[in-house]
Amino acid sequence: MTVTYELLKEDRITGARAGVLHTPHGDIKTPVFMPVGTQATVKAVLPESLVEHGVQIILSNTYHLHLRPGEDIVKEAGGVHSFMHWDRPVLTDSGGFQVFSLGKINSITEEGVSFRSHIDGSHQFLSPEESMRIQQALGSDIAMAFDECVPYGADREYTEKSMRMTVDWLKRCIASHDNGSQALFGIVQGGMFEDLRKISVEETCSNDLPGFSIGGLSVGEPKEKMFELMNFTAPLMPRDKPRYLMGVGSFDILCEGVSCGIDMFDCVMQTRMGRNSTAVTSDGRINLRNAKFKRDFGPLDPECDCYVCRNYSRAYIRHLTVSGEILASMLLSLHNIAKTVRFVDDMRNSILSDKFSEFRRSFEDRWYNQN
Amino acid sequence: MTVTYELLKEDRITGARAGVLHTPHGDIKTPVFMPVGTQATVKAVLPESLVEHGVQIILSNTYHLHLRPGEDIVKEAGGVHSFMHWDRPVLTDSGGFQVFSLGKINSITEEGVSFRSHIDGSHQFLSPEESMRIQQALGSDIAMAFDECVPYGADREYTEKSMRMTVDWLKRCIASHDNGSQALFGIVQGGMFEDLRKISVEETCSNDLPGFSIGGLSVGEPKEKMFELMNFTAPLMPRDKPRYLMGVGSFDILCEGVSCGIDMFDCVMQTRMGRNSTAVTSDGRINLRNAKFKRDFGPLDPECDCYVCRNYSRAYIRHLTVSGEILASMLLSLHNIAKTVRFVDDMRNSILSDKFSEFRRSFEDRWYNQN
Repeated sequence: MTVTYELLKEDRITGARAGVLHTPHGDIKTPVFMPVGTQATVKAVLPESLVEHGVQIILSNTYHLHLRPGEDIVKEAGGVHSFMHWDRPVLTDSGGFQVFSLGKINSITEEGVSFRSHIDGSHQFLSPEESMRIQQALGSDIAMAFDECVPYGADREYTEKSMRMTVDWLKRCIASHDNGSQALFGIVQGGMFEDLRKISVEETCSNDLPGFSIGGLSVGEPKEKMFELMNFTAPLMPRDKPRYLMGVGSFDILCEGVSCGIDMFDCVMQTRMGRNSTAVTSDGRINLRNAKFKRDFGPLDPECDCYVCRNYSRAYIRHLTVSGEILASMLLSLHNIAKTVRFVDDMRNSILSDKFSEFRRSFEDRWYNQN
Repeated sequence: MTVTYELLKEDRITGARAGVLHTPHGDIKTPVFMPVGTQATVKAVLPESLVEHGVQIILSNTYHLHLRPGEDIVKEAGGVHSFMHWDRPVLTDSGGFQVFSLGKINSITEEGVSFRSHIDGSHQFLSPEESMRIQQALGSDIAMAFDECVPYGADREYTEKSMRMTVDWLKRCIASHDNGSQALFGIVQGGMFEDLRKISVEETCSNDLPGFSIGGLSVGEPKEKMFELMNFTAPLMPRDKPRYLMGVGSFDILCEGVSCGIDMFDCVMQTRMGRNSTAVTSDGRINLRNAKFKRDFGPLDPECDCYVCRNYSRAYIRHLTVSGEILASMLLSLHNIAKTVRFVDDMRNSILSDKFSEFRRSFEDRWYNQN
C-alpha cells in the first residue's frame, strides 16, 4: 500500500487521535488541514510560503484539471507535483462534487454522469473508470472515489438510491484503479439519514482501502445536524485507517471533527476569504475594509506569528484591500492558511500531551462567546 | 547630504558609467532599475522576492499615497519603508506627472495645480511646498521636485513657459525641503526642444542638489526623437551627480540610456505586462495566452535563472493565465522584474570590465533582429 496510517495516540475522553500518514511524497502528521489548490495553485500563495507555514498536503481538483489544461498536459509535465512545483503530497478529489455543483448535468445513470463544462459548455462525461484514469494521469498521492454528493433536502428514497450507486461506483473505482502508484480512498455518503450513513460505512469500509472519507456534509444543513452526523458516522469507521471529512475548515467544525475522530480536512474558505478582505483571527473574523482599521498598526492577529503578522499591519492591509491591490489577497490568504494550520497543529499537540479536552473547552468558550 | 554619488568607472567609448549611490537605507549600485510600487506595493510581488532578485530600490507615488491612504497614516506607521515592509531605499516621485496624467485638472497657476482626484472626484491641490511636505511625511530616501511634464506635441511657447515654471518651482521645493532627512532631486524638462533642454539643465543643475533627472521623455514621441534628446541632454548634466531617466524600462531604452550616461531608471511596464500575461525574454516578449505554449515545458526564458524560470514551465504559467489565476500575475511580474534587474546588472558589469561596447553591440544585434 502506498499510503499507510500510523495511530500514535487516542484521547481518553473524546474520539480525538493523533497519527502519521505515510505517503510517497512524505509523512503527514494528523490531524491535518489541507489547503485547496483547485486549478493546481493554492490561489495567490507561493508554494514556498505554504511549506514555510507548515502545510503538509494540498488538495487539487480532478474536474477542473480535466477540463483545463487536461490531464494529458499535467502528465506530460511529470504529474501534478512537478507541474505546479509542489513536492509534498497531493490529494485529488474525484470530480464528483464539482460535476454536481458546477457543471450543467445532462444525465446521471449507473454508467456515469453526462454534463456540460462550466467553462465552455462542451459535452463531458465522468464515470468511476474515467475519474480513476484522470487521477492516475494527474499522479496525486491520494485519489478519491467517484461519488454522488446529494444536496441538502434530498428525500430518503433519492438519498438511499444515490448512496447505493456510490457504493457500486466504488467497486468499479477499485477494479479500474492501480493501487501501486496511488492510494484510493472510499467516500461514505447517506445524506442526513443515520441508518443510511451506517449502511454506507459498512458497504464502503468493507473494502480494503487505505483511507475513507465522509462526504455529503456541509451541503447546507444546520450545523447541529452536521455535528450529529459527524459524531454518529466517524466512530463507525475503521480505527486503523485515516478518516477525512470533506470540505470543511471553520475552526468550530475542525474542533468538533477532531473531537469525533477525524484526521483530515480541506476547505477553500481560507483563500476565498483572503480574496474577500477577510482575516481569520483568534477573536473571530475581521473584514479589513472596515474603516476602524485605518490607523490600526497592529498585526492581523496579535496571537499569530505567521509571516504576514510578523511584518504587516492591519492599516497597511486595509490600504491594499481598499486600493484593489493583489498583495491584499496574497497576504490575507497566506495568513488564513497559516492560522488554520497552526490551529490544527495545536489540537494535535494537545492530543499528544493529553490535554485535548482542555484545549477544546478553552477554544469553545472563546468561540461561542464571539460568534 | 543624505545621498551621495560615487563614480567608479566611465566607459572609454560611450558615456556609460558605473557607480554607487549611498543612501540612508543602504548603497545602490548604478546603473540601477527601480521597480514601481505605485500604492506602496510592487504589484503582485512580495518584498522578499524583490530582495532575492537583487532589487535595490523601489519607486513609490506621492500622488497615490496622498490620496490613499494619506501621508499622515504612512507617517504614523513609521514612514513608507515600515508601512510596506521594505527596508531598502525608496524614491518618491513628486506627484506632478500623475496630477497631469490621472487627475482632472481644474487650473495650473504659478501657485500650483488644482485638480480632482481620480478616485473619488474630491478637490485637491498640489504645489511645490505641498509635494515636499507630503514626501517628507512619507519618509522616502529620495524626493523628486514638483514639475510639470508637458505632453508630446506641446508647442515651443507652452513648453518654454512650463519649463521656466518648473525651474521656479524647483527653487520653492528647495526652500521648503529639509535636506537633512531626505535627498531632493531636480528634474530637467524642455519637451522636444534641444535649446530648452539646455536652458533647463543650466537652470536646474546650477542648484546644489544630490541628483538630477530627465523628465518629459517617453510621452508619446518617436523613439528616435527620445534617443536624440537623451543623448543631447544627459552629457550636459553634472558628471559627479546621479542622472535619472524617468519612466522607461524597455531594454533598448535602458541600453541607450546607460550608453549616454544615465544611472537610474524606473518603469511600471514589468509589472503591468506581468498582469497581462506577458513575459520579457532575451528573444523578445512572449504572450503566455498563445496556444503554442500549451505543451511547452521549458522555462519562460531559457537564459534566465530567476525563481520563476528555475521552477515553473511556460505550459504551467499558460494554464494559470488562461484560468485567471492570481499566481500568473505573481510569477510573470517577478520574472519581468528579475530579468530587467539582471539586464542592468549585466550592463554594469560590462562597464566595470571595459566591455560595454561589445555588450551593447551584441544586445542590439539581437534586439533589432527580433523587434
